[in-house]
Amino acid sequence: MSVLVVGSVAFDDIASPSGQVKGILGGAATYFSLAASFFTQVRVVAVVGDDFGPEQEKVFRAHNIDIRGLERAGGKTFRWGGTYADNLNEAKTDYTDLNVFEAFQPRIPKEYDDTDFLFLANIQPTLQADVKRHIRSVRLTGCDTMNYWINRTPTELAATLKLVDVLLINDTEAKMLAHETNLLRSANKVLAMGPQALVIKHGEYGATIFFREGAFGIGHHPFRAPALPIEEVKDPTGAGDSFAGGFMGYLASQEELNREVLKRALFYGSVMGSFAVEQFGTERLQSLTREEIEARFQVFRELTHLE
Amino acid sequence: MSVLVVGSVAFDDIASPSGQVKGILGGAATYFSLAASFFTQVRVVAVVGDDFGPEQEKVFRAHNIDIRGLERAGGKTFRWGGTYADNLNEAKTDYTDLNVFEAFQPRIPKEYDDTDFLFLANIQPTLQADVKRHIRSVRLTGCDTMNYWINRTPTELAATLKLVDVLLINDTEAKMLAHETNLLRSANKVLAMGPQALVIKHGEYGATIFFREGAFGIGHHPFRAPALPIEEVKDPTGAGDSFAGGFMGYLASQEELNREVLKRALFYGSVMGSFAVEQFGTERLQSLTREEIEARFQVFRELTHLE
Repeated sequence: MSVLVVGSVAFDDIASPSGQVKGILGGAATYFSLAASFFTQVRVVAVVGDDFGPEQEKVFRAHNIDIRGLERAGGKTFRWGGTYADNLNEAKTDYTDLNVFEAFQPRIPKEYDDTDFLFLANIQPTLQADVKRHIRSVRLTGCDTMNYWINRTPTELAATLKLVDVLLINDTEAKMLAHETNLLRSANKVLAMGPQALVIKHGEYGATIFFREGAFGIGHHPFRAPALPIEEVKDPTGAGDSFAGGFMGYLASQEELNREVLKRALFYGSVMGSFAVEQFGTERLQSLTREEIEARFQVFRELTHLE
Repeated sequence: MSVLVVGSVAFDDIASPSGQVKGILGGAATYFSLAASFFTQVRVVAVVGDDFGPEQEKVFRAHNIDIRGLERAGGKTFRWGGTYADNLNEAKTDYTDLNVFEAFQPRIPKEYDDTDFLFLANIQPTLQADVKRHIRSVRLTGCDTMNYWINRTPTELAATLKLVDVLLINDTEAKMLAHETNLLRSANKVLAMGPQALVIKHGEYGATIFFREGAFGIGHHPFRAPALPIEEVKDPTGAGDSFAGGFMGYLASQEELNREVLKRALFYGSVMGSFAVEQFGTERLQSLTREEIEARFQVFRELTHLE
């Protein structure tokens, strides 16, 4: 099976208590692709500028990621600069230069029309909806969003949520979207907006998946995957996108989509997020092996499993 | 087996988004006792004033809690008033009237000298150490503390930590105690201060137990128990003490103390904490049955267990 991601490719300047890096390859679609590539065939739709060259291409190609959907526009690639203080949960944005990303209109190559799994990374909700409507073959659509769209384009976002199967957001975003302070009530309200399942990411505490009654099986009990306590989080950038990549990539590798598969996907998401933060940028994802992923999956299992 | 708790018995005024109550029975030793009473014989050492009467006694007696160690002093019982805003994780203290608790000197009745399990609730560290030294029969000692003692009596607290087997604190307290921002590094530093195991409570995200290398079995992998996403947290007061009661009470009910038993104890702690917050004060713990506890234990298991 294949998974298509639509989102940003960027160059990042990042500073954290562990050090700093400049102009490294980043962007939601990049983290997602690399994480998903360990499980399935990945296709990317994104836009880059003239400064995106063979060196960057090589990172995608090394993981057999299909970048025929990577549009080259005249100008500079999206650039982001962020600083993490001791509280690594939140980045202070130093600057955002949208550059070619500002006028991004996702164009889906013909060869992508048979895509099975679709992930709409964090872009303008109407663009997300357009992509979803364009690809008719999709079995399951995952979606991300952020406070910016929740606050500024609530109507457009509501329309998009009606089209997606699984929404992946964090605690703050879920509460903001539901106008609620309680997590469970937020989850129920968000599920009523459209998605069959909702993944809420809790940062260092893992993630919970909530199901609509009857979606992907019987019952409606939520399920929680832990995150690994890590000695040194070097760079939290891309943890959520890597989570999404592990989650969607694992789903795309499976024949059947049932509760048990979604639970395992949640564990794989959490595993990929935990690797991503160990090094700056995509460094750890680039060096990773499937064996290491399976070993950590077992560690995560033991972390919460009673005999 | 028996578990002895030394701590506060209080009357609380509590306000939360779900309502408010005045003069209800509270205090760490009260929550702990009720939670532990579902698993084992409980003994209490605490001090109360003239305003503590048959109505309050009945709450303890209904759960076969031994209150021969409940000292009656002339004066008023400890009173605390707190308000929870929408963020239910933290109470704003409206007032603290220590009253008879101010001069509390734990006196252990002779009949308690054969106590097997000891829990030192959040009191002055030197008093905690005195109690620990007094009871020589103890198989395992659990201990709580708070930011007040961490900041004001670090030397006394360090001495106490050398005497206890399991310390139960929350994320903020662990980081404060270790002068660290990372949870895993904090855990390792705190374990180096004395305890064989450290339970860090994450509020609505559950709790993690960290082990010293070789303590209670081989290896040193941590273990995490989830918390149940709850639709309405009415009153978080006493959640941590109820957690400790479930944890210690379950340990005291077991023949052997090994990793697997400690993991199950962590689940029972999380279960008891989740019940406590469903009603104001000790109301939910008072009405609870062992069957409800076992049913929720299974829900917690399913919440994180892959097939």
